[in-house]
Amino acid sequence: MKPGDRRAHGLPDRRADLPDRMAHALPDRRSLDLAAGLGELGCRALLVVAQSASDPDLAPFLGARAHLGAALLVAPREGRPRLAYLNPMERDEAAATGLLLVTPEELEVLRAAREAPEPAAHLAWVMSRALAASGVAPGRVALAGLAPAGEIHSACAALARQGWEWVAGNELVRLVRKRKTAPEVAAIRHAADAAVNVMRALAARVAAARVADPGGAGAGALDPRAAKSPAPAPAAAAAPGAGGELWLDGRPLTVGRLRAEAARFLADRGVEQPHGNILAPGGEGGVPHSAGSDGRPLRAGEPFIVDLFPRGAWRERPLMFADCTRTLCAGEPPPAVARAHAAVLRALAAARALAVPGARGWDLQEAVCLTFEEAGYATPLRQPGTTTGYVHNLGHGIGYELHELPIFRKVAGAEGVLAEGDVFTLEPGLYDAAAGYGVRLEDLCYLGPDGLEVLTPLPYDLDPRRWTQDP
Amino acid sequence: MKPGDRRAHGLPDRRADLPDRMAHALPDRRSLDLAAGLGELGCRALLVVAQSASDPDLAPFLGARAHLGAALLVAPREGRPRLAYLNPMERDEAAATGLLLVTPEELEVLRAAREAPEPAAHLAWVMSRALAASGVAPGRVALAGLAPAGEIHSACAALARQGWEWVAGNELVRLVRKRKTAPEVAAIRHAADAAVNVMRALAARVAAARVADPGGAGAGALDPRAAKSPAPAPAAAAAPGAGGELWLDGRPLTVGRLRAEAARFLADRGVEQPHGNILAPGGEGGVPHSAGSDGRPLRAGEPFIVDLFPRGAWRERPLMFADCTRTLCAGEPPPAVARAHAAVLRALAAARALAVPGARGWDLQEAVCLTFEEAGYATPLRQPGTTTGYVHNLGHGIGYELHELPIFRKVAGAEGVLAEGDVFTLEPGLYDAAAGYGVRLEDLCYLGPDGLEVLTPLPYDLDPRRWTQDP
Repeated sequence: MKPGDRRAHGLPDRRADLPDRMAHALPDRRSLDLAAGLGELGCRALLVVAQSASDPDLAPFLGARAHLGAALLVAPREGRPRLAYLNPMERDEAAATGLLLVTPEELEVLRAAREAPEPAAHLAWVMSRALAASGVAPGRVALAGLAPAGEIHSACAALARQGWEWVAGNELVRLVRKRKTAPEVAAIRHAADAAVNVMRALAARVAAARVADPGGAGAGALDPRAAKSPAPAPAAAAAPGAGGELWLDGRPLTVGRLRAEAARFLADRGVEQPHGNILAPGGEGGVPHSAGSDGRPLRAGEPFIVDLFPRGAWRERPLMFADCTRTLCAGEPPPAVARAHAAVLRALAAARALAVPGARGWDLQEAVCLTFEEAGYATPLRQPGTTTGYVHNLGHGIGYELHELPIFRKVAGAEGVLAEGDVFTLEPGLYDAAAGYGVRLEDLCYLGPDGLEVLTPLPYDLDPRRWTQDP
Repeated sequence: MKPGDRRAHGLPDRRADLPDRMAHALPDRRSLDLAAGLGELGCRALLVVAQSASDPDLAPFLGARAHLGAALLVAPREGRPRLAYLNPMERDEAAATGLLLVTPEELEVLRAAREAPEPAAHLAWVMSRALAASGVAPGRVALAGLAPAGEIHSACAALARQGWEWVAGNELVRLVRKRKTAPEVAAIRHAADAAVNVMRALAARVAAARVADPGGAGAGALDPRAAKSPAPAPAAAAAPGAGGELWLDGRPLTVGRLRAEAARFLADRGVEQPHGNILAPGGEGGVPHSAGSDGRPLRAGEPFIVDLFPRGAWRERPLMFADCTRTLCAGEPPPAVARAHAAVLRALAAARALAVPGARGWDLQEAVCLTFEEAGYATPLRQPGTTTGYVHNLGHGIGYELHELPIFRKVAGAEGVLAEGDVFTLEPGLYDAAAGYGVRLEDLCYLGPDGLEVLTPLPYDLDPRRWTQDP
């Protein structure tokens, strides 16, 4: 695929005259988008090669969760897609998807085990048979899915000698699944509800903690009535100038303790954390992707970034991610932190106001950068690669993958344009690891038929004690 | 890679003169194995292209869990491996791996975003720069990791024009990580302990249930004292001849209820279920990979397959799977089920007795087939593709992936030979969906320096009430 083809991957023009609300409700919108995209690429079919049903390029075709191992999907430009499954034991799970099937018998997997036992040869075998069984003759095919890198390349190279021509099709599938279906939005909503509940639970834990060392900077800001235990031992190894350690129930409130509680709370609500989470206090929060050290105690007056990005684990729903972040600070925040928090909140409001269908992600990113620059912070707009100030992009699409389309970078195509049906995060932040802080606020947003909806409604206050006063 | 190369992928000969116990303790055994494997393939380096730190071909090089998005690993045949990470925000997480690093600045990711924004071109850009920064000049390189299929193929094809030659390297990495390190075994052991505890908890729930319909076949076999609620309503829609529905705490004990409890129990123990689980009663258990229907109530006298395959979610440990299965039957089992259970138990004992270093997985599979054939059951040995009787392979290696090496199929190479350090399942089963049953018993086994150790020690009884009498 040439760079110039990218715009061609956008949504097809032939449906531009449909009212947006109606288009959103069309059950076969994705089929039309896919057929148009295949046409632009000059491909006769899409082939998805997947290791399991949770492959983000396969899952959108399956509906609810299926218990499938290695599988392939063939979507001809004309006609219905077919699911080729490799394991005869998965026949009931495959049938439950409602798709037309290519069985292991049709793929001749038993013969393949004898005649093509080597992994790349086996892959080439099932790819060509899945295509043939779906009525696709050798020619130009778009390829998607996540596959063993060396083996898929070898298989493609071998099949090229039989007349197959492979075009990168992952981005086409990303574009097709960028705008969410109603069941996908419902699944994201469920995962978001779980994240919201658990964020509140964690904030309540921090709010209930008290300072162990009465000499700590934040001691006066915490309510001693919240402590359930006798006065704990003095805090150890507090850095000069830092607030005292936070204790709860007679023990230090560490990152690891909250991480364990977060996992339990989330599991109770039916979600998992395949990519973990970020619980990063002080300077650890100053490096946005640092997950935080479990042994680290929370301290009064120190900002604490809580970034939860769980995925639903319900069998009856699509497997979708949610994502939200808050920054908490028990006790009086240092002036630099309070100032950063106010600036981030303004930037988030500015971004939300601009998030309308047709807007470019890059326009929002630029607006947020200008907001921050006016407040005196470095941004990647003027200082590419900066590691203090605002150091990242504004957000990301979310769905079957934690990071998907739309993107908020400077790009030309539909992958960078907000559309109705998109679900994405807006997550401005300000960082200064050397000064011991990071502040990030992240809303999960759905651009629905009635405009922007925040799927993670939560207080923005630094002080978690004010959260409980929220209605 | 040609099929004839496969044996060459085995463990290197030059260490054959080391005592096995000593070889197992060598910290750099994998480096030696990798270097030897690259030599056999004629490659100057291994390149792993990963979407995240949980990629099964990347994770073995990282040690404990790291919070990394897209990353590459370059392991030259001579010299230490380097981790190339793409996101400057992940610098602390990357540094914590202890690996030599290639930074985003060295990869020129900012320039790539301008000059090669299209995904396949971007991938080719970072691949070639990661190799160059690691001192690897264009030539023959083994490729591993999971990557977007179409994009990795396009990137490889583009780089081939610059002198790079790509060899499938996934199987080499699978062979290198087949024999587990001590931290990996410890992580599997932890996940296995969680699975064992939760299996016991689920068995206790089934044991505590009682039959709602006193006319059901299994009514007399259940202890009415276990019921905590008044007599429930009569069971609905019981098939003729089937036992009564099981109730607990005033509600039917459904598959979905137990699935929700399993998820909570597992999360409490720090493990997740990225591939779900199998809770399959009666005829649903007769199709081995059917996950089971949530709305289905359990019934007395009906076998119920519980197959848990969770993955640890601890930050300080490698991300490893465990796997075990039991078949439960509350009340009197039908004669066919009791007979199948006894045969499966005999087959499992036969398999365990043969599981020694140097044994071929296929030898164990054959022995199990013969055991079943003597008892009058169909097997794939004589009836390939059979869907009743014994219908699958004996087990699979396990680790970073749920299914990895060793395999128990008829293959020529080291991928089918048991070795000290391997962790694998042994899971014979007998199935007859039409007759309404499946019976499977699965032990998770570690072939350690002192022989075979079962990591999932649990009772084998069909009747869960006998589990609680177990010491």
